[in-house]
Amino acid sequence: MKIREIGFAVLVVVIGFVSFGCAPEDPGAPAAAVVADPLPSWNEGPTKHSISQFVASVVDRDSIDFVPEPERIAVFDNDGTLWSEKPVYFQLLFAIDRVKELEPEHPEWKSQQPFKAVLENDMEALAASGEKGLIELVMATHAGMTTGEFEAIALDWIASAKHPTTGRAFTEMVYQPMLELLKFLRANGFKTFIVSGGGIEFMRPWTEEIYGIPPEQVMGSSFKTVYEVRDGEPVLVRLPELDFIDDKEGKPVGINSHIGRRPIAAFGNSDGDLQMLQWTAAGDGPSFCLYVHHTDEEREWAYDREGHVGRLDKGLDEAEARGWTVVDMKSDWKVIYPWQ
Amino acid sequence: MKIREIGFAVLVVVIGFVSFGCAPEDPGAPAAAVVADPLPSWNEGPTKHSISQFVASVVDRDSIDFVPEPERIAVFDNDGTLWSEKPVYFQLLFAIDRVKELEPEHPEWKSQQPFKAVLENDMEALAASGEKGLIELVMATHAGMTTGEFEAIALDWIASAKHPTTGRAFTEMVYQPMLELLKFLRANGFKTFIVSGGGIEFMRPWTEEIYGIPPEQVMGSSFKTVYEVRDGEPVLVRLPELDFIDDKEGKPVGINSHIGRRPIAAFGNSDGDLQMLQWTAAGDGPSFCLYVHHTDEEREWAYDREGHVGRLDKGLDEAEARGWTVVDMKSDWKVIYPWQ
Repeated sequence: MKIREIGFAVLVVVIGFVSFGCAPEDPGAPAAAVVADPLPSWNEGPTKHSISQFVASVVDRDSIDFVPEPERIAVFDNDGTLWSEKPVYFQLLFAIDRVKELEPEHPEWKSQQPFKAVLENDMEALAASGEKGLIELVMATHAGMTTGEFEAIALDWIASAKHPTTGRAFTEMVYQPMLELLKFLRANGFKTFIVSGGGIEFMRPWTEEIYGIPPEQVMGSSFKTVYEVRDGEPVLVRLPELDFIDDKEGKPVGINSHIGRRPIAAFGNSDGDLQMLQWTAAGDGPSFCLYVHHTDEEREWAYDREGHVGRLDKGLDEAEARGWTVVDMKSDWKVIYPWQ
Repeated sequence: MKIREIGFAVLVVVIGFVSFGCAPEDPGAPAAAVVADPLPSWNEGPTKHSISQFVASVVDRDSIDFVPEPERIAVFDNDGTLWSEKPVYFQLLFAIDRVKELEPEHPEWKSQQPFKAVLENDMEALAASGEKGLIELVMATHAGMTTGEFEAIALDWIASAKHPTTGRAFTEMVYQPMLELLKFLRANGFKTFIVSGGGIEFMRPWTEEIYGIPPEQVMGSSFKTVYEVRDGEPVLVRLPELDFIDDKEGKPVGINSHIGRRPIAAFGNSDGDLQMLQWTAAGDGPSFCLYVHHTDEEREWAYDREGHVGRLDKGLDEAEARGWTVVDMKSDWKVIYPWQ
């Protein structure tokens, strides 16, 4: 089995280069570099094998599963799939920091929920404000400015904020095995997209540098935006009104609107990704669906069927019933983060 | 000036290859092919020169106008910019054909406007039904089916329908000089996008073959779409409700939502494209804005400040005031269509 796997890897790398019609990035590198494992942070086993095998089959012109390069679309959830999402979605931490920054302009927040809870670091009261409270929080902190202004605010935060338990920058809380997977897919002619429930303009300023995914390949939830000319200068203004929620049933809708063709590979970690995986699996040709299962409470977090953030319940049952690949983080990943 | 222009062309072609890190498509071609004019259907003159000069400057690493490849975003209107739009938008002809096809299922249409007008080929009555009538027509013919069903219908029509005056397939009514321009930009590391007021799912099935633009780089007006599971099969259903109108102020909004960065080059032909050009021109770095001016009533059509379809009035004034490039179809284009 091992020899066959290495054979696959070689085939995949070689075909990757051929299908690009390009020379390898570094023509001076020794020949051994060509056969290097493209997924070194993945332990050998059925999970890694299923990925290599799928990629090998869709790039093989002689395979019945061959897929032409323009149709090799791969979609990735972000929170809990490409980076961590605990103790809460990182974007919520951004909103909390924004509330504290904007407090001087809003004396009324001292006595008004959910802002009061945020200012008093009362996470229980914040949770009690429910979805309505969270939406209010997001509206007050993410809208009412131009797209350029929001981009600067998001970039500034992502460059300076630290994760509450690891003390790391949030962009360091990305999964090393998934970074390798993104690269491996692109080396084999896949176009990689993010399809996140998070805010599209919260992610776009940094996804290219961190994931190698340019803004035009990032989808997410969004605010209504309007075009205005202010002092002769055209601007796009973010209104405090949700435009699209890119979660659950919204994910296939967003994929259709944004990409216009069905992915052949989908990667998620929660029930919020289930419809995206179902939509991908229902295509005519070959498809690959993968769930990241958070099983490592020592190196990351362990959670699945309980709670709200990253809940994986129906999805886990469906993955088992349909034979989708499920990553056991504890046993399948050699490392979690790039700095480990 | 001529020698300088040829110099530019050579530089641009050479740098295009270098920036891709790829061999030319046909390594067996004689060396002369490398210096061939990439825009052979454009007559020499200030218009062609402005294009070559802009491209040469943004790909030149030593120029202050150098733009890194991922930021070389070019956006194109479709109707009247990449293909003709007379006697009416081709998509309206599609809707008319659909009404005639669906007539047996809708006996009520015989006495109900705007359908009655369509069935009686009464274009005056159809025009009199106004925007409300047109929207009704589009709703009845473009919605109420799955995305897959609509794609098949659109593909079938585009493969068989003929233009009412030229008798050509609609995909032959594309502008040869613009096909060359799209290719020229891509050869120089640009990513080319369509930003059309027309229906996004009406264009996507054929833009890759005709323009070399994949579906994920096509934006347009859209219907609300919902995800459903029918008999265990997930489908996306098109509701008879407009979701987004990708015209005028909508174009920069759509560009922001879909691409997430500002284009550096924009190409249009009507006042409906003006905001897209303004948004492009207002970027921090170099930018290029071009209007196609329909001046050739012999080989195509001549129109600008009057009427509704393709009206170019404010845009023509603004182009002059701001020094944007304006294509005079009659004098700037050697041929209009690929078959001429």
